Amino acid sequence: MQFVSEQRLDDGVLERAFTLGEIPGILWTPGSASAPAPLILVGHPGGLPMMYPRLVARARHAAAEGFAAATIELPGSGDRPRSAAAEEARADLRRVLEAGEPVTDDIVDRLILPLLDPAVSEWQTALDALLALPEIGGPVGYSGGVISIGTRLAVVEPRITAAVLFAGSYVPRTIIEEARQVTIPLYVLLQWDDEGNDRQMALDLFDAFGSKEKTLNANMGGHTGVPQHAGEEANRFFARHLK
Amino acid sequence: MQFVSEQRLDDGVLERAFTLGEIPGILWTPGSASAPAPLILVGHPGGLPMMYPRLVARARHAAAEGFAAATIELPGSGDRPRSAAAEEARADLRRVLEAGEPVTDDIVDRLILPLLDPAVSEWQTALDALLALPEIGGPVGYSGGVISIGTRLAVVEPRITAAVLFAGSYVPRTIIEEARQVTIPLYVLLQWDDEGNDRQMALDLFDAFGSKEKTLNANMGGHTGVPQHAGEEANRFFARHLK
Repeated sequence: MQFVSEQRLDDGVLERAFTLGEIPGILWTPGSASAPAPLILVGHPGGLPMMYPRLVARARHAAAEGFAAATIELPGSGDRPRSAAAEEARADLRRVLEAGEPVTDDIVDRLILPLLDPAVSEWQTALDALLALPEIGGPVGYSGGVISIGTRLAVVEPRITAAVLFAGSYVPRTIIEEARQVTIPLYVLLQWDDEGNDRQMALDLFDAFGSKEKTLNANMGGHTGVPQHAGEEANRFFARHLK
Repeated sequence: MQFVSEQRLDDGVLERAFTLGEIPGILWTPGSASAPAPLILVGHPGGLPMMYPRLVARARHAAAEGFAAATIELPGSGDRPRSAAAEEARADLRRVLEAGEPVTDDIVDRLILPLLDPAVSEWQTALDALLALPEIGGPVGYSGGVISIGTRLAVVEPRITAAVLFAGSYVPRTIIEEARQVTIPLYVLLQWDDEGNDRQMALDLFDAFGSKEKTLNANMGGHTGVPQHAGEEANRFFARHLK
């Protein structure tokens, strides 16, 4: 892990861009921390430069609770090399959505499944590097989308002890089966009127999670319209589980 | 409205039992209030004496936010005269639930529909009397079940400006249609694994509400297991909308 730049944000949060091999990432740490901070892995749909404003807002909220937050670029997104197969699946999804046709399992599988192994493995590598920093302790939470990646991480990565999952993307059926193995506390955010998602699929996934403690918080406002109070409630969920 | 007894609870909340004609009720007001307090109507499934511990807990939380809270007994419940038809519908519901048979529309309609007109009319009479007290101002919220009563109240009673609805009872199809007319902000609590409720019916009702601002907060723990954090989030919803 190589830090490539740093800046102090106006609320005192230290923002450091890093690279992890080929993978760009960003780490935010609270302005004042007496002890090693718990860590939140900030998930997103890919495209760090475009996602930055929303990611830094979430990181600032996390820092206000005393949490460090970190994100990395997804394989095939942002400035990373593209995958022809993923681009084709994305184009197919756009086409059927525009035509008002049903999104087939085949498209969802081609869109998500090839991403899972590399993304999960890269998050784990990042976690190794981040937890080696003296200013970061634990426990670790995962927050955001892609929900299939968050689900797989919750299954395979025991260092993640709680997750806020954003149900804002299509979910392969195999992930709904895998979700039964998840046992950590979950807070699932769903936009009820998400224009680019399948609500029933999200409800089936929520139902499948094996966790004894799981909350579904669903709101209006479209894919990008998660209301401020829902974000605050998700933050309080981490405050309950990561402290 | 006749006050029949009063006691000061240990957190300073003043609890007064009252009667409104034949109807028993309870009013809770904050220990210290400089201005007339907003009011929360505390809904429940009937049976004040049995429900008291849970109702007083909710009223104390409301009072901590500076809200007055009031409840009345439902028609045919607690110490009020029984309805033979309602008792029969309730026995039919128990019978099909125990037999693992489907709950028919007929049973749900016989259980809920005859209750609606009298219950709503009595809540409105109580509201007239409560708002005439100098220590109670407004705005007014409705909190709790029976969700069909809360829905009808939200449609017909313009003094109610926000509602926390507990989706813990069966809903007649006609109420799902009526829900499209509701436009006030809503916070709907659902127990995902409620043993005496139909989850799909609750999701259909949430979907039908016409409100631009509506939240569904669903948790595990069975009918009576609403977690503390969900109650606190519902309280914050009122703090956003009744102040």
